[in-house]
Amino acid sequence: MSATPPPRYAYLGPAGTFTEAALRQVAAPGDAQYLPQIDVVSALESVRAERADFAVVPIENSVEGGVTATLDTLATGLSLVLLREVLVPITFVLAGRPGTRLTDVTRISTHPHAWAQCRRWINANLPRAVHVPATSTAAAGALLAGGGSGSHLEPGFDAALVAPLTAELYGLEVLAEHVADNERAVTRFVVVGRPGQVPAPTGSDKTSLVVHLPSNDAGALLEMLEQFAARGVNLSRIESRPIGDLLGRYSFSIDAEGHIAEERVAEALMGLHRVCPHVRFLGSYPRADGTAADVRPGTADADFAGARDWVSALREGRAH
Amino acid sequence: MSATPPPRYAYLGPAGTFTEAALRQVAAPGDAQYLPQIDVVSALESVRAERADFAVVPIENSVEGGVTATLDTLATGLSLVLLREVLVPITFVLAGRPGTRLTDVTRISTHPHAWAQCRRWINANLPRAVHVPATSTAAAGALLAGGGSGSHLEPGFDAALVAPLTAELYGLEVLAEHVADNERAVTRFVVVGRPGQVPAPTGSDKTSLVVHLPSNDAGALLEMLEQFAARGVNLSRIESRPIGDLLGRYSFSIDAEGHIAEERVAEALMGLHRVCPHVRFLGSYPRADGTAADVRPGTADADFAGARDWVSALREGRAH
Amino acid sequence: MSATPPPRYAYLGPAGTFTEAALRQVAAPGDAQYLPQIDVVSALESVRAERADFAVVPIENSVEGGVTATLDTLATGLSLVLLREVLVPITFVLAGRPGTRLTDVTRISTHPHAWAQCRRWINANLPRAVHVPATSTAAAGALLAGGGSGSHLEPGFDAALVAPLTAELYGLEVLAEHVADNERAVTRFVVVGRPGQVPAPTGSDKTSLVVHLPSNDAGALLEMLEQFAARGVNLSRIESRPIGDLLGRYSFSIDAEGHIAEERVAEALMGLHRVCPHVRFLGSYPRADGTAADVRPGTADADFAGARDWVSALREGRAH
Amino acid sequence: MSATPPPRYAYLGPAGTFTEAALRQVAAPGDAQYLPQIDVVSALESVRAERADFAVVPIENSVEGGVTATLDTLATGLSLVLLREVLVPITFVLAGRPGTRLTDVTRISTHPHAWAQCRRWINANLPRAVHVPATSTAAAGALLAGGGSGSHLEPGFDAALVAPLTAELYGLEVLAEHVADNERAVTRFVVVGRPGQVPAPTGSDKTSLVVHLPSNDAGALLEMLEQFAARGVNLSRIESRPIGDLLGRYSFSIDAEGHIAEERVAEALMGLHRVCPHVRFLGSYPRADGTAADVRPGTADADFAGARDWVSALREGRAH
Repeated sequence: MSATPPPRYAYLGPAGTFTEAALRQVAAPGDAQYLPQIDVVSALESVRAERADFAVVPIENSVEGGVTATLDTLATGLSLVLLREVLVPITFVLAGRPGTRLTDVTRISTHPHAWAQCRRWINANLPRAVHVPATSTAAAGALLAGGGSGSHLEPGFDAALVAPLTAELYGLEVLAEHVADNERAVTRFVVVGRPGQVPAPTGSDKTSLVVHLPSNDAGALLEMLEQFAARGVNLSRIESRPIGDLLGRYSFSIDAEGHIAEERVAEALMGLHRVCPHVRFLGSYPRADGTAADVRPGTADADFAGARDWVSALREGRAH
Repeated sequence: MSATPPPRYAYLGPAGTFTEAALRQVAAPGDAQYLPQIDVVSALESVRAERADFAVVPIENSVEGGVTATLDTLATGLSLVLLREVLVPITFVLAGRPGTRLTDVTRISTHPHAWAQCRRWINANLPRAVHVPATSTAAAGALLAGGGSGSHLEPGFDAALVAPLTAELYGLEVLAEHVADNERAVTRFVVVGRPGQVPAPTGSDKTSLVVHLPSNDAGALLEMLEQFAARGVNLSRIESRPIGDLLGRYSFSIDAEGHIAEERVAEALMGLHRVCPHVRFLGSYPRADGTAADVRPGTADADFAGARDWVSALREGRAH
Repeated sequence: MSATPPPRYAYLGPAGTFTEAALRQVAAPGDAQYLPQIDVVSALESVRAERADFAVVPIENSVEGGVTATLDTLATGLSLVLLREVLVPITFVLAGRPGTRLTDVTRISTHPHAWAQCRRWINANLPRAVHVPATSTAAAGALLAGGGSGSHLEPGFDAALVAPLTAELYGLEVLAEHVADNERAVTRFVVVGRPGQVPAPTGSDKTSLVVHLPSNDAGALLEMLEQFAARGVNLSRIESRPIGDLLGRYSFSIDAEGHIAEERVAEALMGLHRVCPHVRFLGSYPRADGTAADVRPGTADADFAGARDWVSALREGRAH
Repeated sequence: MSATPPPRYAYLGPAGTFTEAALRQVAAPGDAQYLPQIDVVSALESVRAERADFAVVPIENSVEGGVTATLDTLATGLSLVLLREVLVPITFVLAGRPGTRLTDVTRISTHPHAWAQCRRWINANLPRAVHVPATSTAAAGALLAGGGSGSHLEPGFDAALVAPLTAELYGLEVLAEHVADNERAVTRFVVVGRPGQVPAPTGSDKTSLVVHLPSNDAGALLEMLEQFAARGVNLSRIESRPIGDLLGRYSFSIDAEGHIAEERVAEALMGLHRVCPHVRFLGSYPRADGTAADVRPGTADADFAGARDWVSALREGRAH
């Protein structure tokens, strides 16, 4: 009796990252094959190259903003689609090898973003500490524990700012908790797959897009936004990204409320397709917060269906 | 061998009106039954009551503006549709019974609108002349010639401001030509029928509508207009009309460029149907001036079809 | 001791018109000189020519819409300004010479607009009656009573549709009351003067304008309306009027909520002046209905003053 | 005879960074005191704390987008203003200690952003090389040369991706040139000072702002953008940034064309101040590219002055 192999998930590794915490919400370790990758680009490319079925990557942090490597890799190259989103609260601990005393810490390793998010606590509590950058918080933890792939006997730092899970996983001692400047920080992760599958609408969905404007004056942006407004579609996120070769040329990464299976979203997409030189659909998928879409009067599917029937009747000469 | 009876056209009479001049452009007297009516409302009601197949009525004058009786009668009651428009230049002559001298004229009869349009010439040339109102210019001419239905031996006036055709028809003498203040004045007439027939698109069409706004603040009017702008549809006419029972409540009578069979117009109509509390379709029909519609990039039928195919493919998971 | 002569009011006569009823609300007969005029244009020209100090003319009827002669005469020629508005309910009676019986009435005289407004009652009660047009309802009444300037022994009709005041003034007998199809019809009149005087703001004002658009596509109208929307100014009336020489060219006659002394209105006017090829200010004056302007958050005078102070401070390098 | 001390410039150090290349365009080493800082936040805080007169920091990269540390530090805290912008082309070389052979390179240190920008070249030429993150490209170079503040005898890597200037400054050997994936990459730097000084308008200026929206639906963003559009002000950059504590709340970092001393910009700012809950002015300063602002008809200073005079005249009753 043959069994289906478990799905393969590429993700931003190494073991113990916040991304792994996100992945655990999606598929338990026993039900999936975890494929840690060196960076976000590698994780997404694994799916394109069919070395993985899915990727789990961070897309937006409530403090730092959009994760540009994710946004930019999704925006060009072979099409990928978002299938689900997952929210993970971002809390840090300062961890050391067992026996380390807080007062001895002078060199702290972590990812630069994590360093930025704990800066105020460091200034207040360890003002003389210097930052030793790492490729990820988990990499700093692994290196400190001596298990990193590039390990030395001497890691060159005394402590690491890591996720609680990392400290636990690598047997590190927590020297201080609640060291993040913003206790409510959260990162949004997405599950990414190859096209061919659109999750069914749930009534609480979002649709992600990349849109290029014909020009950069205020009028072009207004014209693009009116394609949403004319169909009563709200945006939950809009971010500009440089198109890449020149300053002053932007694309927009957009999350719109609703699902492409809903008429108001479909018609707004059609409008963008007609008006903008480039539109990439990145998927419709359930919102992690479960908030139902705000469907204004006149923008429900039934309203679109009624309007379409009315116009059909008019075209055929059937009276008002 | 039985013959189809000729179509019956109700029109604003009596014989000799500018409306009859418009009707002659539509159907020669030998090919149709001419049914002169006492006023615009009667002409339109004849079609509703099936006493006539079509009505020909004035809808807009380049000097006086919209013909409110026509606009308001079309806007409510049983649905009627516009099938064609006809332009007639409006030129007046001052006509009298044979033998009348211009210097003897002191009382001039005509319709109040005609009087308004010749006011400057009258002030300059016959400053002491007074106005004797008539129900139409042709009625004034008929009365003067003695052939009016309510004729007296003595019509109570010396001359009439009438169309050249009227003077000719009633055997009146032209006392002065080119008496209109504006030599380029033109009136637009429409051929009106019962629903069940939409003229085929020609590439140079207009679509007439009546639209009520949810409220009268600037935002509601903007929202309505954006339904056109978001689909690249130009307006060639927009007129407000009081809704009727209260000051400060308006409907809008609109001519949009294009035909309901065209996608951009159909989608704009769908948008209005969703957003506005009331929309009445008054027909899509060829423009009298033959000007091709200004179809902006991204708003041709092929663009809409391409956009719809794209969204369909996305919905089915076929990749961008 | 010399006395100031009473102000001279030109108005749409003759005695007994609805316009005179409006004038009586403005200045009692003993306090003013009443100068009845043959039509609206003559009344307004009297003020331009300084034969009168003020004119009282109808500007909008809740059933018929804008009074085009008034709108068009104000829109061009020497500047005039609106100083006040007055509302008069429009009710009609059918009046005859004493002794007339309703069943004997076959010919009814009145102004065409009045005829239109009583059409339903006539159809139901006197279906065979024909319309004999008159230059005003009061003129019809005067003629019937035998006191008209162009009187005959035999007026050529049996009854007249007139204001109750007209019947009373000319000693006519009321044959039927409540004959108007719409019992709530009201006409708005304006008091017009020469520039040099702007009534003080009251908190419940309107500002009247005539605006030409650079072009007639939907975009140009949107751009004009956004000048109001960007400053939170509502419109209480917008009417298109043909510019006059060609079909398809419109100006807009607009009533905006608020007074030119208020910042949001002043800035909107400045925006129109910059963007539109022609703007004519027709005055700021108290609203007859006393409704306070809807001043949205951020659009009160204090908000504009605060914003101006902030920008001034920024320009001078005074912080944030 | 006493001399004015040279101005103090804090900048993102250490010596040899791209930021130092930008600083050199602003003030030659002999005319200014160079104060290298550990990061962008420290550089900006030096100005706030008056330990430096100016800071030079990167604000936008044509490939990576906005520099979030700069944007976010400017957006909150004590007010700072931008005084000038400088463009620096971003080109990288792979540098090693003298004698290093390209084929021996397995570990490469650099800042993560630089790594991202050379990724394609690395994959193609040194596919087995791993990334050793550094706090800056110059820090990697310094460490490699043995002169870094945290120097070891053994830096733990073989080569560094650095600016050409860095290689030169630290006596490193260039192993490969033109290693950046995008040869036209450019970074925009700004000179930041304390409020109290607004550079004079030059006709080619930009104005930087941070704006919070009242809400995140499409309508609120449209309303904000219309404050620019209604005054004909183009935007050259718009970026959303999370407000910080919650997902789904954004502020917008905006560069508008023109100078606050120009009327159209000043009035747009006033509009934002009235409509948005928070607006921070970050300065008006010359554009590095010298492109003159696109001043549309009706939006020049003379147009605003003319409009203001017109409204003043109207308010005082002086005729149109």
